[in-house]
Amino acid sequence: MQYDELFQYLSNAEKRINSVLKSSQVMAYFNPEDILESVFRYIDRPAKRLRPSVLMMAAGALGGSDREDLALPAAAGVELFHTWTLVHDDLIDNDTLRRGGPTVHEAMRTAARTRQNLPADLATEYGRDVAILTGDMQHGWAITSFVDCTLESGIDATLVLRLIKHLQSYVLGNLIFGEVLDVRYGMHDLAKLKDVDEGKIIEMLWLKTGVLYEFAGMAGALIGKNTYNFEDDEVQAITHFASKCGTAFQLQDDILGILGDEASLGKPIGSDIREGKKTVIVYEALKNANESQRETILATLGNRLATNDQVQAVTNLFCDLNGIGRTKELAEYYISEAIPYLDDISASLYKRLLLLWANYMLDRKF
Amino acid sequence: MQYDELFQYLSNAEKRINSVLKSSQVMAYFNPEDILESVFRYIDRPAKRLRPSVLMMAAGALGGSDREDLALPAAAGVELFHTWTLVHDDLIDNDTLRRGGPTVHEAMRTAARTRQNLPADLATEYGRDVAILTGDMQHGWAITSFVDCTLESGIDATLVLRLIKHLQSYVLGNLIFGEVLDVRYGMHDLAKLKDVDEGKIIEMLWLKTGVLYEFAGMAGALIGKNTYNFEDDEVQAITHFASKCGTAFQLQDDILGILGDEASLGKPIGSDIREGKKTVIVYEALKNANESQRETILATLGNRLATNDQVQAVTNLFCDLNGIGRTKELAEYYISEAIPYLDDISASLYKRLLLLWANYMLDRKF
Repeated sequence: MQYDELFQYLSNAEKRINSVLKSSQVMAYFNPEDILESVFRYIDRPAKRLRPSVLMMAAGALGGSDREDLALPAAAGVELFHTWTLVHDDLIDNDTLRRGGPTVHEAMRTAARTRQNLPADLATEYGRDVAILTGDMQHGWAITSFVDCTLESGIDATLVLRLIKHLQSYVLGNLIFGEVLDVRYGMHDLAKLKDVDEGKIIEMLWLKTGVLYEFAGMAGALIGKNTYNFEDDEVQAITHFASKCGTAFQLQDDILGILGDEASLGKPIGSDIREGKKTVIVYEALKNANESQRETILATLGNRLATNDQVQAVTNLFCDLNGIGRTKELAEYYISEAIPYLDDISASLYKRLLLLWANYMLDRKF
Repeated sequence: MQYDELFQYLSNAEKRINSVLKSSQVMAYFNPEDILESVFRYIDRPAKRLRPSVLMMAAGALGGSDREDLALPAAAGVELFHTWTLVHDDLIDNDTLRRGGPTVHEAMRTAARTRQNLPADLATEYGRDVAILTGDMQHGWAITSFVDCTLESGIDATLVLRLIKHLQSYVLGNLIFGEVLDVRYGMHDLAKLKDVDEGKIIEMLWLKTGVLYEFAGMAGALIGKNTYNFEDDEVQAITHFASKCGTAFQLQDDILGILGDEASLGKPIGSDIREGKKTVIVYEALKNANESQRETILATLGNRLATNDQVQAVTNLFCDLNGIGRTKELAEYYISEAIPYLDDISASLYKRLLLLWANYMLDRKF
């Protein structure tokens, strides 16, 4: 598929979103210096801005380019909302790398050693504390950006209030539900993974990822159509479309987590295996494994000290035992379910972009 | 001073606020069970609800009882906002007790041992993870409650959006600034405390506490007067009044942290000393100490294993070396600065309550 038109749009959207983020009045309240630095740590690194882009495309699809333009602060808000969840998620997962650089807690741990001369244990604690507070600050900033949809862009105040309420109750609640499930799945022996079936893993990844894509689509649709009727047919169509695409995005993300290279992952090859991330890939591979293959997988998965050879062996098993194949199949299924939702949306540049975007969920390499 | 009228109001306000909190639609999104339980952990324990009460009194003072009634979701929102900061603050401070029971991370650590049979290190991590996510959920809930001021109470949407923006940028930014300063002051040797003067400690406690009281007063005043002019004279008067009272509240809180008994503190006597909390009390006592007294204080402060006798000796020094006296004097000064701001507010039950409330900041024993 030819993605040139999409890539051009995404590259342009990225610039527009970055310009909103970098010129925010809220910046005056990022204190002290460690917070200011941490708040921008992920934002300043190259990122695809897929969530805010789908919001803007949805706004354009139902309201044309003028409404798409007005949706910009909401798009920035979705990116910020995503960002604060990454900061807290990285802390919870004890991850040290994100987008090719240190995570917030890791960067602040290092900084506390050199700048404040703190002993190792206190530096670790300081890093954690600043990461918690950085996420909290970004959470507030995200909401502020939605408020600016009315105060700066002139979008109907009741619509914006309803969007904020939906984001802060339904979306946030589901995200947190998914995060707790993920933490639990990660803490228990793989032997107990038999309590967890494919459906539960997909539910978890919808909760952790799909729900925010769904929101991005919905918010864009509502802003585009200038309505606060969440039940509107076109709004519902785009909401479902984005939700399904979000699940497909995460399935593909899990595949890239196994097969991607270091540059595109932003973290070392094998990270997902060494962290013991519970995915459909793992579930399917274990289901199809014989006793010896099962032992190989269980000995390596979640073992932070696993060698490159062990990681490679498990990667091979994930392919051979249909872990990758099944996940690819599911991702394709979700996109095939998503696309017909757009049937009744009028043809436009934005509709075309949304369809390209859906296909790109499967083809993307990073 | 006779506080009967105030106590009656506070007790009634507490019931009204609790009823809003316990009937929230957002509850449907508190999943799984560990999150539901954790979200209500502090809310369900006896608390004075001073921040939401000052919001309601301010609304009543400028708008009478009808507007005070409409302000109820905003009052609940301020209490929730305070609550999420407590959950994250307790985690950051490694505190194990709050309001007479275990903190969120501590309760979840214990629960993870028994319910999930997790090993000690993973249980500690699970407790932390759930505490981070619980605070995040409550943060969202707080904002939802403000949104309900319009969607449920019918308060002007632009006013509510401006309140949310102010809370999520200025208030949150200052709170986090104060929290980072507090963390830093706590991590460095007391010997280095010479870099920190009384003014800096007061600034830190205004950031950590005063700013949310200021917001409560301001939000109540704006809702009461039904204006979104933050510069309105009466609104400004109540804003400054609440801000000064907030600083006095925290100064008195620090005194109670040294002299209060276990039942009223909700945590063991000496906790503030064993945690090494940096307060005006500590600063003033160290300033006035001779070498041997200084050594006694430094050997005990921040020593979690200090004996009761050591704690008692430091408590005595805090009294003898004017730590308590100076803090009391400052608290009284802030209240004396606060009260004249109400001079031009018309007499009413609510104005009387606000004045009683200001004096109560100094007289309260818990």
